[in-house]
Amino acid sequence: MPKFAKRMAYMQSSADVIRYLFEAMTDPDTISFGGGAPAREALPVEAIHDIALEVLTREKRGIQALQYGNPIGIPDLRQAAIDRLLTPKGLKADLENVMIVSGGMENINLVSHLYLEPGDVVLVESPTFVQSVQVFRMFEARCIACETDDNGLVIEDVEAKIKKYSPRMIYVIPTFQNPSGRTTSLERRKAIAELGSRHDIVVLEDDPYCEMRYSGEDIAPIKYFDKTGHTIFAHSFSKIFAPGARLGFVFAEKEIIRKIYEAKTGTNSHTNVVTQILCAEFFNRGLFEPHLQSIRDIHRERRDVMMGCIKSMLPAEVKSVYPDGGLFTWVELPEHVDTTSMLEEAKQHKVAYMPGKEFFVEGQPIRNNCMRVSFGGVPPEKIRVGMERLSEVIRSKL
Amino acid sequence: MPKFAKRMAYMQSSADVIRYLFEAMTDPDTISFGGGAPAREALPVEAIHDIALEVLTREKRGIQALQYGNPIGIPDLRQAAIDRLLTPKGLKADLENVMIVSGGMENINLVSHLYLEPGDVVLVESPTFVQSVQVFRMFEARCIACETDDNGLVIEDVEAKIKKYSPRMIYVIPTFQNPSGRTTSLERRKAIAELGSRHDIVVLEDDPYCEMRYSGEDIAPIKYFDKTGHTIFAHSFSKIFAPGARLGFVFAEKEIIRKIYEAKTGTNSHTNVVTQILCAEFFNRGLFEPHLQSIRDIHRERRDVMMGCIKSMLPAEVKSVYPDGGLFTWVELPEHVDTTSMLEEAKQHKVAYMPGKEFFVEGQPIRNNCMRVSFGGVPPEKIRVGMERLSEVIRSKL
Repeated sequence: MPKFAKRMAYMQSSADVIRYLFEAMTDPDTISFGGGAPAREALPVEAIHDIALEVLTREKRGIQALQYGNPIGIPDLRQAAIDRLLTPKGLKADLENVMIVSGGMENINLVSHLYLEPGDVVLVESPTFVQSVQVFRMFEARCIACETDDNGLVIEDVEAKIKKYSPRMIYVIPTFQNPSGRTTSLERRKAIAELGSRHDIVVLEDDPYCEMRYSGEDIAPIKYFDKTGHTIFAHSFSKIFAPGARLGFVFAEKEIIRKIYEAKTGTNSHTNVVTQILCAEFFNRGLFEPHLQSIRDIHRERRDVMMGCIKSMLPAEVKSVYPDGGLFTWVELPEHVDTTSMLEEAKQHKVAYMPGKEFFVEGQPIRNNCMRVSFGGVPPEKIRVGMERLSEVIRSKL
Repeated sequence: MPKFAKRMAYMQSSADVIRYLFEAMTDPDTISFGGGAPAREALPVEAIHDIALEVLTREKRGIQALQYGNPIGIPDLRQAAIDRLLTPKGLKADLENVMIVSGGMENINLVSHLYLEPGDVVLVESPTFVQSVQVFRMFEARCIACETDDNGLVIEDVEAKIKKYSPRMIYVIPTFQNPSGRTTSLERRKAIAELGSRHDIVVLEDDPYCEMRYSGEDIAPIKYFDKTGHTIFAHSFSKIFAPGARLGFVFAEKEIIRKIYEAKTGTNSHTNVVTQILCAEFFNRGLFEPHLQSIRDIHRERRDVMMGCIKSMLPAEVKSVYPDGGLFTWVELPEHVDTTSMLEEAKQHKVAYMPGKEFFVEGQPIRNNCMRVSFGGVPPEKIRVGMERLSEVIRSKL
């Protein structure tokens, strides 16, 4: 068989991790805190059913849904993104600033097409989202981790690494970060935007969780502080509509959107129109706002139950992040515990999580004693049972 | 604003062409033979409506449709592809040999991720599909055209160019080719498979039109003759189900599928599950075979009307390809006529086509006097009116 291109050699581990998560997900007896899915109870099944019933007919939109579409996406959904998701954050956008893509990950891929040459450095948070790292590696970029604290990226370390590595891109998940659950503070957001402008670095702001806030106050995006077009704001409909619909969008300068359009035609022509129309109609019927309220309520309860379990069940030496939203908390065990090898015991106890090691890259220490614990996809009563199991597993290691 | 990566400089023309096609499509007074869409009358609107109504509920499949999916695609649709689209062609596949992707173009993108390094040569037909060329260029590959005749690629020229360029890949659209409408003969298919095996070259067989046969006999795919795993068979559900659903699939050796899986996770995680489930159910309810019969009938009539118009309306010195299926014919005007500059007159006469020039790359002469004329998306009575207009435009140039 023909040999693969160099880039494919960097991809392996991501697929392994995804396979592991799917295995844990498909075993009905295992309670998995490993995935990144939102609550199934939070999916707008009935709304989508009713919209499909009315829209998928031999009328104009029904035909449009099934025919080839424009690579930039349907105007209705781009307008909904502007009115409901950008304007409330203080972001001013025209239709030409917004493009629909096939889920949030495709933003990472398309922006990489636009900017990354082999050997380019991408600065990332430590820890950061493993799947995005795999995308950057597929583009033969080198990911360098910067220090983070409870307020996000430590700016002094980012500055030092800009000096040392002349990076092409800074990749940030500013709100309820995957995997840590932490949120970048307003001051840090402003500083990151300014660093991008000053040093001619692309800032890729990946913000799929920002609507999922359960406590605290909204914070303006990094893009809000961008005066030079260096920040690209990437968002997703996966958490607020449905992951299986594979819809995301990107907001950037028009010149950048035109290039993303070209990369999109070279990737898969356009995003599927069927779910674009269902999603646009979901917004246009005013279903989004009450739905958002309901999914916030569902996930807030899970967050509260999870944080309660951590406090009451886990030993005092275990640390965790209190997330104001999103789907994850980040649990730090005593230094000597390796959460990757602990997976074996966890499997026997029918509980799953993501070992922290996966989320670290060079530039910062790999911390084997951490784990990402996702509460989003697990109902409250199962969170309690699962955390009892996880507590047993952890105590056996102390 | 930050500067773009080198690869983006090669992408421009494709997007321009697509924009032109969309403009012609959206003007209600223009009859466009420029697009590549199948007949809207051939879309299974009612079937999809009924399936959506039953499937998109808070039952197992309804939830599955809206949640994250497996990058390889849902088993039902992969099995349908095997049973209904591969086995009848003599292609033996397991579930692990088949992966669902977001439309036929994504196959081209993902296979490029797997194999193409900057500077690699891809041998293509002359003419060939412009959008695929743009994908290869986005991967910084060099496309070299080989001679074709009514039986497809001229093998002697392919052999000469293998010797001259040591290509990494041969890209072929063997059945009712886009743009020429020609079909590669059985002998040539066998020869292409053998060339791939003998010279360690990837053969990317892009076969989205093969089910759309209106006359003549089916021919075994190139992949049928592949004994070494060098040929990758790429297919699409766009023509036989719905383009807007953005579904395609790829059939290859398991080791190759595993790598495509990795490239897919680095592209957009997975294909949207909503339309995968609708499409799988379309096959499982036995709706595909009668639908295929009906879309063949609809498009056969259009093909016949188009070829009749060409014969009766266009001057005798105009040559054309008689396609046994698909959506296109290829029209060759006298040498001195430039179909690109003729577009201006065509616009005034409210008729559109694709200038042939777009489909040529280095290695073979660029033939400015050709055009791709698509009959798929135009009803018979409009084909007649449009061809009268086109005939006037052409006669004004002779």
